[in-house]
Order: sequence, then structure tokens, then C-alpha cells
Amino acid sequence: MESPDLILRNCSVATMTGSGYGAVRQAAIVIRDNRLIWVGAETSLPSSLSGDEVDLAGRWVTPGLIDCHTHLVFGRNRADEFEMRPTGVSYEEIAKRGGGIASTVAATRAASMEELIDAALPRLRRLLADGVTTIEIKSGYGLDVENELKMLRAARALGSQMPVRVQTTFLGLHALPREYADRQDAYVDVVVGEMLPAIAEEGLADAVDAYVEKIAFSPAQAERFFEAAACFGLPAKVHADQLSASGGAKLAGRLRALSADHVEHADEASVTAMADANVTAVLLPGAYLCMRETKKPPIELLRQHQVSMAVATDCNPGTSPMPSLLLAMNLSSTLFDLAPAEALAGATRNAAKALGLTDRGTIEIGKLADLAVWDISGPAELSYWTGHSLLHSRYVGGERAS
Amino acid sequence: MESPDLILRNCSVATMTGSGYGAVRQAAIVIRDNRLIWVGAETSLPSSLSGDEVDLAGRWVTPGLIDCHTHLVFGRNRADEFEMRPTGVSYEEIAKRGGGIASTVAATRAASMEELIDAALPRLRRLLADGVTTIEIKSGYGLDVENELKMLRAARALGSQMPVRVQTTFLGLHALPREYADRQDAYVDVVVGEMLPAIAEEGLADAVDAYVEKIAFSPAQAERFFEAAACFGLPAKVHADQLSASGGAKLAGRLRALSADHVEHADEASVTAMADANVTAVLLPGAYLCMRETKKPPIELLRQHQVSMAVATDCNPGTSPMPSLLLAMNLSSTLFDLAPAEALAGATRNAAKALGLTDRGTIEIGKLADLAVWDISGPAELSYWTGHSLLHSRYVGGERAS
Ligand SMILES: [Zn+2]
Ligand SMILES: [Zn+2]
Repeated sequence: MESPDLILRNCSVATMTGSGYGAVRQAAIVIRDNRLIWVGAETSLPSSLSGDEVDLAGRWVTPGLIDCHTHLVFGRNRADEFEMRPTGVSYEEIAKRGGGIASTVAATRAASMEELIDAALPRLRRLLADGVTTIEIKSGYGLDVENELKMLRAARALGSQMPVRVQTTFLGLHALPREYADRQDAYVDVVVGEMLPAIAEEGLADAVDAYVEKIAFSPAQAERFFEAAACFGLPAKVHADQLSASGGAKLAGRLRALSADHVEHADEASVTAMADANVTAVLLPGAYLCMRETKKPPIELLRQHQVSMAVATDCNPGTSPMPSLLLAMNLSSTLFDLAPAEALAGATRNAAKALGLTDRGTIEIGKLADLAVWDISGPAELSYWTGHSLLHSRYVGGERAS
Repeated sequence: MESPDLILRNCSVATMTGSGYGAVRQAAIVIRDNRLIWVGAETSLPSSLSGDEVDLAGRWVTPGLIDCHTHLVFGRNRADEFEMRPTGVSYEEIAKRGGGIASTVAATRAASMEELIDAALPRLRRLLADGVTTIEIKSGYGLDVENELKMLRAARALGSQMPVRVQTTFLGLHALPREYADRQDAYVDVVVGEMLPAIAEEGLADAVDAYVEKIAFSPAQAERFFEAAACFGLPAKVHADQLSASGGAKLAGRLRALSADHVEHADEASVTAMADANVTAVLLPGAYLCMRETKKPPIELLRQHQVSMAVATDCNPGTSPMPSLLLAMNLSSTLFDLAPAEALAGATRNAAKALGLTDRGTIEIGKLADLAVWDISGPAELSYWTGHSLLHSRYVGGERAS
């Protein structure tokens, strides 16, 4: 038996099509099964459409928000290191004491899949309270076959336990595990030869990712990984040019990756390469803030070359313990000068693009009925508030989810 | 009939007495009526004490948080101006178009008291979700007798409608209303001669405040206002040295004010003056972030001279639309290098001091039973997360409030 259509009435809609908000005032939205089948001014609603009606009392509706870059699953937070920082203990010293990413790897390996899920749930709930309906979750703290699989299974399980769509990314080249110290290429062998096939076979990843940076992996190592992933049909994402101009964004362009993320140090040639290959730039102002960076991403160049800009939380225990996409939007305006409409496009339409998803991110006929309803006077409010969510409700696939 | 004692068992307590967290592990807290009558290791709990018991399952308890500097009551948000900023419209141009603080004044004057309350409630709820049990609310957008009274009545009403203690501050010298353009001293006459007596007579303010800045009011004007307020028994607070070294902190020292707030541009002489007079420095990192300031408050000097540092949201529609005290704590660490224990002291013990309150801000026998209970592994987590509240419950005067 089919469920009746659902009609959301008496709302303003930021469709996020075209430039700006693509706003429709005094609008209605019609949902059949889990898709949008009609959007427009309420006065134009065809009389042939009927169903259950919800009066949204003038509220604003946007596409459900999409957090396209997170490391949500991890074994333990690093508040203890946060305590050390103001006392002058350097990152290097923290790393020597077994802190930094190594401590997250150790804790993630030590945790069961259930423990990883339980630890991630409060962060996920926080994101849902911001109107998120799709979240990307990366692996990358397991650094061996068993634990990378465990992380990705935990990420998938979060999507079945909670009303949210989860996209998983195998972050094969994130950090070098201790057992491979000074043997980077041997580690890449394992990533390409063992982890990738096992993950692909189980269908656990929707994309792959590599951290291209002087202190991490080289463009050549990333390229090897990405080419192997392409054979399994997995598209690439790149942690690119975050701390130095290290060739990540250029590589993303050359290999037609879905996205280049961070990009603080990307130069004009890199931006051009991204533009030519339609690579989305994913801006991560939470990490920029937390790491007290001063070099901003080249926003004006990205605009000039019409590179799509997404905005995400980068939620992770070391450099962006920030499970709030609205706050990432606010920071993208405050720190990177994005206009509120750019920030909202960055957390909807362009975030979908950064994940290679064409079925969401705008409010248009045929798209998934993933929606966020807000108690706001206009969509600029979503970026205006710092640490405040005015979410009224979420719809995931046409079902009211919170 | 007396209510039975309430015993919170099986918790860790950050008493915030002494230096650091003043932590007691495996502790119990006993509440009689609305006060704390016993705190210590659970094994030492006197057998004479009995009552209703709550097992906190190992959770952490801190003093209820105190937001000691807010402009929570206002007529309209300024998201529209936020939209203009990235497009290059200057503050001056926005002000010319009727924006800036003048637009908030116009909207606040146009709103009824009930409308002001309704508009503030979502912001207040957001703060309570951060474990806030006391909030200071300033007037300063009315700028005439009737509307300053209305703002303060709205603030007081919030305290009776919601489970939170409200302290009100008459911010008499905030901005010059249009009708007094170029007649600053005539406006000070009205503040001192009409507003202050009316507010004092109705008992609507617990303190007074002035914005001492080149673009606002002079130290001499503030001094006149503060001396008049002292005759009504109202202590002073100062918006001091935010945008320039304009003498605010020195004045606070000389007049033994409760606090000097912002203090980005305070020099060593000002810090010494504050130290000598036991003036609390209130740090407002939300405004610093929102206004993209680069000059940090002199934290090291404040530490050297043992000036108490409080941390607050400055929640206001123009320069800090941030109704989250936990986020202010996180930003005080990230932007100003406060240690997490300093940030928590800033939102508890030192915030109470900034309000002249001796009955709260620590967990000690005799204090009000205003508590926050957290799902955290240690108190550093309160400052560690960016935009994430792990609040389990609040107690206000010994009553579970959320
Ligand atoms: Zn990342
Ligand atoms: Zn203020």
C-alpha cells in the first residue's frame, strides 16, 4: 500500500537552486514516498495533488544540511592534550608523550565497534540538531585492515541506527602507524594491496581519501592509492594544501577528484586545476580556528574561477572537535568572508557535489525529500548566529525525523 | 513542612575552590533546602545525613555556569547586516542606512515587553542547555526612560518564567540616541537625573554599566554616572578598552568597579589599577571573533597581577550573536590561550565575582545549590569541544531544572 502524499504548506523555501537562496515565499512542497514531486508558490499548487498536510506557519525550509567532511568515529577525545596546550607544551612534545593522532589510533584500535558507535552518537545527535540529514564519515584511525574495517562498519551502523544518511570514505592514507615508521611505501602497499580490496569487497566505502602534506603522504603515494581505488569504482577526495603548498589540490584536479579539502595554501595554478576538473573545494574553518592558522583559503580565487565551495565541520578529536555544521557555516562567514548564501550552498548543494551525490542538496522535483525546517526570519540567520540552532524539524526521505 | 535533604552520590566534583578544578573524586553532595550543606568523598559522608538520593553514575558536577555579561534582551536580530558584510558594505555605510546599533534601538523601542521576552527565550534556552544557572542581562537598547525600564522588566520576567537566576544591569551609557546627536552631556543628564532614579526606585537593576570608548562615552561621563549610581547602592561595571586604550579599565580600578569587560587594549598600568582594586576582568572572545579583532587581551599581565578573569558570551545582536557559554569558554582557550581550568573558573567562580555575588560560583558548604551535571570524562572537556554541550542536568537551588 502506498503512503499518501505529504504536503508541507505555508512556508518559505530556500531551494538553493540558481544563485543566492533560490527563495520561494508562501510556498508548498509535495512529497511522494521519499522524493519531492512538487515545489512552488502555494497558490499554484495543482488541485490534483492532495494528501496529508502540515502547516509550517511561515517557517523557512532548506535542503537538509550535508556535512561532507567528518572524522566522527574515533576512540577517545583529546581533551587532556587541550589542557596541555596553554601551558606551553608543544605539539611535538605531546606527540612524543604518545599524544596526537597516535593516541587516537591506539584508542580506536582498543575500542570495539559498539564502543565506537556509542562514543560517536552524542556527536551525531548534535549534528542532527543542526538540521543535518547526510553526513560523511571517514576512517583513518585504524591504520590496519581489521581496524579500518571496524571504523567503516561503525560508520555504516550509525546510519542504520539513526535517522540520517551516512556516506563512508576510506581514508587510507591519513597517518603512518608506528609499526611502519620510516617505511611509508610499505604502508602504501598494505593500503592498496590489502585494505582497499577488503573494504571494496564488503562495500564499506563510497570514496577514498588521502592526506597529502609534507608531514603525511606525497602526491605520488596518493596517486597510486587513488588509481587503485578507481579500479574499484571509488572516487577520490584529498586533504590538500592545509599546512603548506604540497600539491594536493593540483593532484585533485589532475585526477578529477570529487573534492580538495582545506586548501588554505592552494595557489592560483591549483585553483585553476580544480576549476578545470570541476573539483569542489571543501572549506574547514573549524580546523583553521582550532589550529590558530592565519593563512586563509583563497576564497576570491575560488570565486573567480567558479570553483564550487562546500563547508564542513571536519569534526575530529585533534584539530576540530566541533560537531556543529551551523557553527562551521558561521565561521566560514566570520573567518573566510563567505556570504551567508555561499555558506548555506556550501552545506547543501556544494556539499552534495563534494560527495558525488546528485540526488540531494537542493529542493527540486525528483530529489530526495531531505529537509530542514527552521524558526528563522530569513536564511541569513543560519550563518549569523554563533553556536545557536533554530531548527524546528527535519525530514529524511519525507519522514519527520526530529 | 521541610523538604527532605537531597544527596547526589557517585560523582566527581569540580568544586572550583583553590587553584585548578578543586576536584573531589567518588564524591557526594548534600543539599538542604536550596543550599549545599555537605561536599566531600562519599566514604566520608556522615551517617547523620540522609534524604532522597540520586546516583550520578560517575558523572562530573560543576557549579552551575554563570554568564556574567550579556545583552540577551533585544528587539530584532541583525542577520541582514551580516549578509551585507562580505559584500564589502562597511559598518559606516550600514550605520548610514539605519543599521548598526540604531536599528536594534529602533526595534527594541517598537517591541512590547512580551515581544522582547518571547524573542529572548530561545537564546536563554540555548544558554541553559550549556548548564547556565545565573545570567546577567543588560539594558542599553532603549535609551529613554520608558524603554530602558521595559528592557529591565523583560529581563526580570525571564528570571521568573524560566529556571534561572537573572541579574540585571542598567547599561545607561551604551550609545547616544539619535534625538541627542551631538548633545552627549545632555543625554548623560537624562541618564543620571531621570533613568537612574526611576530604575533604582523600582529595584530593577543590580548594577550599572557604561561603554567607555572613543566612539561612545568618556571616562569623565562614566564617572559621573557611576557616582550617581553609587548613591543608590548600585555597583559599576565597565565596557573597557575594547577597541582602543580609552581609560575604561583605569577608571574601573579607580572607582573600585566590579569588573572591566573586554580589556583588549588595557595596558600594564590599567591591569595594575584593576589588581589594586580587585576588579575582575571579563573576557569576551565571541565579540573578538565576530569583529575579527587581532589585539588580544593582556592575559599574561592579568595572570601576573593576579587579576581574576571571567569569561562570558557578550550575547548581543551586533558583535556577538553567540548564546553559548561553553563556546565562549572554548574560544577563550583557542583564541586567548586560557587553560581549561581558567576558562571554567571564568564561567563560575570569577563570573560570580564579576557580578558581586558571594553565594555562588563554587561548590562549598553554604553556597546556593546551583549545579551542572555533565557526561564528560573530565572538566577539560567543557572547554575542549567547539559548539557541543554534554550537559546531563542542571540544579537550581537544589531543584532539578533540566
Ligand atoms: Zn579531515
Ligand atoms: Zn557588552
